[in-house]
Amino acid sequence: MADDEANPDEEALVSTFFAPLAAGYPGALDLKDDCALIEPAPGSDLVVTTDAIAEGVDFLPGACAADVGWKALAVNVSDLAAKGARPVAYLMALSFPQAPGRDWLAAFTTGLSQAQKAFGINLAGGDIDRRPGPLSATVTAFGSVAHGTMVPRTRAQAGDRLFVSGTLGDAALGLDLRRSPQLAASWSLTPEEGAHLVARYDRPQPRLALRQALLAHARAAMDVSDGLVKDLSRMCAASQSGNPLGAILEAARLPLSPAATKAIAADPGLTRAALAWGDDYEVLAAVPPHAARAFADQALADGCPVCEIGWITAQPGVHVVGTDGQPIALARTGWDHF
Amino acid sequence: MADDEANPDEEALVSTFFAPLAAGYPGALDLKDDCALIEPAPGSDLVVTTDAIAEGVDFLPGACAADVGWKALAVNVSDLAAKGARPVAYLMALSFPQAPGRDWLAAFTTGLSQAQKAFGINLAGGDIDRRPGPLSATVTAFGSVAHGTMVPRTRAQAGDRLFVSGTLGDAALGLDLRRSPQLAASWSLTPEEGAHLVARYDRPQPRLALRQALLAHARAAMDVSDGLVKDLSRMCAASQSGNPLGAILEAARLPLSPAATKAIAADPGLTRAALAWGDDYEVLAAVPPHAARAFADQALADGCPVCEIGWITAQPGVHVVGTDGQPIALARTGWDHF
Repeated sequence: MADDEANPDEEALVSTFFAPLAAGYPGALDLKDDCALIEPAPGSDLVVTTDAIAEGVDFLPGACAADVGWKALAVNVSDLAAKGARPVAYLMALSFPQAPGRDWLAAFTTGLSQAQKAFGINLAGGDIDRRPGPLSATVTAFGSVAHGTMVPRTRAQAGDRLFVSGTLGDAALGLDLRRSPQLAASWSLTPEEGAHLVARYDRPQPRLALRQALLAHARAAMDVSDGLVKDLSRMCAASQSGNPLGAILEAARLPLSPAATKAIAADPGLTRAALAWGDDYEVLAAVPPHAARAFADQALADGCPVCEIGWITAQPGVHVVGTDGQPIALARTGWDHF
Repeated sequence: MADDEANPDEEALVSTFFAPLAAGYPGALDLKDDCALIEPAPGSDLVVTTDAIAEGVDFLPGACAADVGWKALAVNVSDLAAKGARPVAYLMALSFPQAPGRDWLAAFTTGLSQAQKAFGINLAGGDIDRRPGPLSATVTAFGSVAHGTMVPRTRAQAGDRLFVSGTLGDAALGLDLRRSPQLAASWSLTPEEGAHLVARYDRPQPRLALRQALLAHARAAMDVSDGLVKDLSRMCAASQSGNPLGAILEAARLPLSPAATKAIAADPGLTRAALAWGDDYEVLAAVPPHAARAFADQALADGCPVCEIGWITAQPGVHVVGTDGQPIALARTGWDHF
């Protein structure tokens, strides 16, 4: 944030809007340095991740700035949550095609501040640039785990039970509703149900409460951000057990919110929202069979219920089985960034 | 980098072009996770920084992809160098308006690989997205210092001597030459001199060799990336000594390359390239008077000569004094990002 302090206007913007976000983190050096300082706790590893969100790609043009701030941080903290890491601090590189107004910045930093409090993390530094292209926010988030305990993506084994937190498909349906509000009526949603789906798109909730359960019991985990089937395929492909693995998913066991259940009842094709549309920001975990019960119990005790949805197989390929026992074919498995 | 592995094409691109850049860093987890792992050495602090470069802003459209890769990393490592930090690892978020060709990626990662070897740093992870807007690369770099030893920007004191590494203005003149090659003749440059200036723009050299001298003797330091006067103003404004500080710079003492000396002789107005045009990626350090000689000697012994260019004053404001003793007024003090 310190990059442009000699410009009085921007210096004022940084000290007015961003410095308060860094006040809780001494290593931010009051945003007066190009660098921030992280003092790792003895015996801890740092878990680091970076993800960008951009207008028109990850949020709709004209989206509420507070939601944009929340989402920029939440999508990164979601990665930390899936690793069993405790959030520590983050850096943010912002770019705008034109300098944002004070109202926009006030709302954006309010959303960030709400997310910081919810996730227990502070701004440590960053960079602001004006350049062509969509408004974008690239966050790098730092988390902490006891040395050697990070839950990797790569250690799933055949026979592991697959669990997912929360509910799937809400955010994808929420985005549909934002684009086509009349869908609420055709899905017979109450206003509260419609608002629930939209909020799930606007304000992802990283599953930090799952930390103890993951650290104690999970063999592999990752967050589901690009569609369940696609992300599960990645977990299978990343296996270090030797051969690529596969998985069976049981469609009937996918956890759905009441709102998503109604939408899918009205239009059964929307099952693909829960399987392959992305933006869920839930945790997918592979747990050895003997630990499955303990994992689910711990998650529930910590206020983050999980649902068993299938298992890892030695045969490669992810297969979805419908309620009739027949395979469900998917035209696409998830969101392509590229 | 692992974000899109289920897309076989991109998985192949990541494993072909990016995984080799991460091979030297176990915490990169072979780029098969959303997160990377950093295991800090006991008793060390992590220094972290993030900076983005974008086509048309930080490099010219159509620039050599190897130079783009080098520069994306170098501008971040330059921040680490100014803090006395030893490079450890970096994350990179890339965005492209359209998927890059294999030739471009091969050249880009070759430039990154050259920079990695030169700076002693490895790729640990990242993110690739396709979205509208210019090609951009946002790097977050991690460095290591012994606990409590990072050289801050904020501790300069009145009376401190100001030093700068290398030479100033070369990159700004190099950019001019790239845009208007005919300037080489009007500046009476040899081909080698012209190539030197252009290379200084294309391939910044972080001053990592200055580490021992900075850690042993500097009170405050930062890299000069947006123009000497602007960056020095930031150092003065960031002072934690109570009142804002100022500085006197002596124009006659600015370190210039033979090529820049010729250009300025041909067009004295180009002195502002050395004072206020940016892209230098040299280190500016404030050193207590009693340590000035030792600082310069250590820097020279380590192969990174520094030049004394002025001093910190208790009066606010940065003033440049010409060879005639008269103040030099600058219409602009540096590059505005915003």
